[in-house]
Amino acid sequence: MAILSLPHQNNLFRTARINRPKSRFMPTTKVRMSLQENGPSIAVVGVTGAVGQEFLSVLSDRDFPYRSIKMLASKRSAGRRFTFQDNEYVIEELTPDSFDGVDIALFSAGGSISKEFGPIAVDRGTIVVDNSSAFRMDENVPLVIPEVNPEAMENIKLGTGKGSLIANPNCSTIICLMAATPLHRQAKVIRMVVSTYQAASGAGAAAMEELELQTREVLEGRPPTCEIFKQQYAFNLFSHNAPVLSNGYNEEEMKLVKETRKIWNDKDVKVTATCIRVPVMRAHAESVNLQFEKPLDEVTARNILKNAPGVVVIDDRASNHFPTPLEVSSKDDVAVGRIRSDLSQDRNKGLDIFVCGDQIRKGAALNAIQIAELLL
Amino acid sequence: MAILSLPHQNNLFRTARINRPKSRFMPTTKVRMSLQENGPSIAVVGVTGAVGQEFLSVLSDRDFPYRSIKMLASKRSAGRRFTFQDNEYVIEELTPDSFDGVDIALFSAGGSISKEFGPIAVDRGTIVVDNSSAFRMDENVPLVIPEVNPEAMENIKLGTGKGSLIANPNCSTIICLMAATPLHRQAKVIRMVVSTYQAASGAGAAAMEELELQTREVLEGRPPTCEIFKQQYAFNLFSHNAPVLSNGYNEEEMKLVKETRKIWNDKDVKVTATCIRVPVMRAHAESVNLQFEKPLDEVTARNILKNAPGVVVIDDRASNHFPTPLEVSSKDDVAVGRIRSDLSQDRNKGLDIFVCGDQIRKGAALNAIQIAELLL
Repeated sequence: MAILSLPHQNNLFRTARINRPKSRFMPTTKVRMSLQENGPSIAVVGVTGAVGQEFLSVLSDRDFPYRSIKMLASKRSAGRRFTFQDNEYVIEELTPDSFDGVDIALFSAGGSISKEFGPIAVDRGTIVVDNSSAFRMDENVPLVIPEVNPEAMENIKLGTGKGSLIANPNCSTIICLMAATPLHRQAKVIRMVVSTYQAASGAGAAAMEELELQTREVLEGRPPTCEIFKQQYAFNLFSHNAPVLSNGYNEEEMKLVKETRKIWNDKDVKVTATCIRVPVMRAHAESVNLQFEKPLDEVTARNILKNAPGVVVIDDRASNHFPTPLEVSSKDDVAVGRIRSDLSQDRNKGLDIFVCGDQIRKGAALNAIQIAELLL
Repeated sequence: MAILSLPHQNNLFRTARINRPKSRFMPTTKVRMSLQENGPSIAVVGVTGAVGQEFLSVLSDRDFPYRSIKMLASKRSAGRRFTFQDNEYVIEELTPDSFDGVDIALFSAGGSISKEFGPIAVDRGTIVVDNSSAFRMDENVPLVIPEVNPEAMENIKLGTGKGSLIANPNCSTIICLMAATPLHRQAKVIRMVVSTYQAASGAGAAAMEELELQTREVLEGRPPTCEIFKQQYAFNLFSHNAPVLSNGYNEEEMKLVKETRKIWNDKDVKVTATCIRVPVMRAHAESVNLQFEKPLDEVTARNILKNAPGVVVIDDRASNHFPTPLEVSSKDDVAVGRIRSDLSQDRNKGLDIFVCGDQIRKGAALNAIQIAELLL
């Protein structure tokens, strides 16, 4: 039995020309030669969720050198057995004692769990990498995209016995800033206007299942099942389901605004965002309009992005080939294209770009594990 | 036999809770009491297409007072019979002689047909309302959204025997400007940043069929049929398929830029757009960021939009209810919501809004028929 298989791992969510069997159990992990005796002991909190499962996939793909690994989840999932990298594991119930002897804990079990158990883990000497929004804006907590601001966590060291907490930014923030930051470093972004095209996965595995179910229902002429989302999602789109605040922005949009300012260490950068849920499975797309302080032409911008770590440029005007969610699904890199000088701004002071990234991977699990790798 | 039924008329494309029979022939037209003896004789060019069919639907819904109506299409469709408003019609092949005695011709058969037959019809004394892009930017041709700039066509009169040509703007332009113009009239838009979420219908009925087919295929684990679009469209999105120009913008985006300037009679207004195809059927959505010359707060803006003709405000923050393509499908009004002051601009000088409109209806057929109504 391999790692638990979730819908996002079947061909619906990858390039459709790959015909995958509809097996619920699909061995996708590499076999480990041996556990690394000197490596950190790690824990995955929320291992049965979409991001939890992706944590395992990424740990395997990148041969993360852990000494031991604990699989933690709710009582409901405790006791389930599965195989990961040729070893059998039993899911354990998350308790305060779960973190004894754990060097690094990867959290993706929602904000409440992070709020309750994050500080407990830190007290026990664990370095927590938290994928929730619980601590992101806490001034003592580094908010890190490894390719962008690794220095924010330079004071945190493994092996001291001292616990700490590092926050993983929101998925749409990560994907946007992976492309915007190299340009920002060159020409300083004054203002950014973002419109997102966000995938179902951002609302969890059950959301992806509901989109698939609804699509089948609607094609069969039946009313759609609306449990996660209050409305039809199949062949439809809607303003992000995150609560709307008194300023008219929803929480997802304010995350982009606030986290950008924190990550760029620039409280004045002007950011506005409109976050929209679209019927794709696991990768976000973002239309990003940038205004710069210094001149930046599109050729220079394209070259900067071609050389930016973790970014791939897909920008073929002749064949009209640009980033799509499907092409980045299950891939590490964030893809950027449609790179062009903004006609509506002063010459060379503005750019429009279009960015896609796998929400579960670089938008969550991969970024968190890259943070953990910085600790090694 | 009613008007030809196309996929966009089944429940897939309306609010899914309405369960419609999968009949290919669905009587949706009202019975006419009598043909209006004093009304204009009209012709529909491209009657078998998605917009052509919507022309008939709208003519019926609005009781357009025509004296006679000719159904024109290619040789391939000529000879087919169908019933419209309780009269039987035979589709005729489009020829130069088709326009003899025709007062108003509604064209939606593509740019080549408009370029070839538009001028011929004008020569024969017909007033042509053209839905294609062929003549939109011609300085002698009014480009009209009736609620926005009816004065542009004030010199054109029925019954003079003198032909003329009026252009219907592009769908995304119409939908955007229906919401932006009332605000522009109040506070003068200096700059507009648009990101679109465009439906399959914009590429024709066959595109909607391909999206449906692909979705079935992908759900069944089969490779998607890619004839209209070169890639998977189901559960995916991509930069608009219109050709990309040397400035990096595609033709769809440049239409928004140029047509806005013409309709607002303002060659300086700064507009940038990113047009993206999303897997919805027949209504476009647009995220629009506006910068104003004069102050405009969100409360005033919302009231202006509530009173704007052809516009409905769906802006309920508490229940997170905003415009969606599904809710506007087959409806006349353009819906606008997410109306809020832009945090990234000076106080009261900027707004963000989200707009949805049925691409085939207000984005094409309805607007054209409203132009025709202005002639009456």
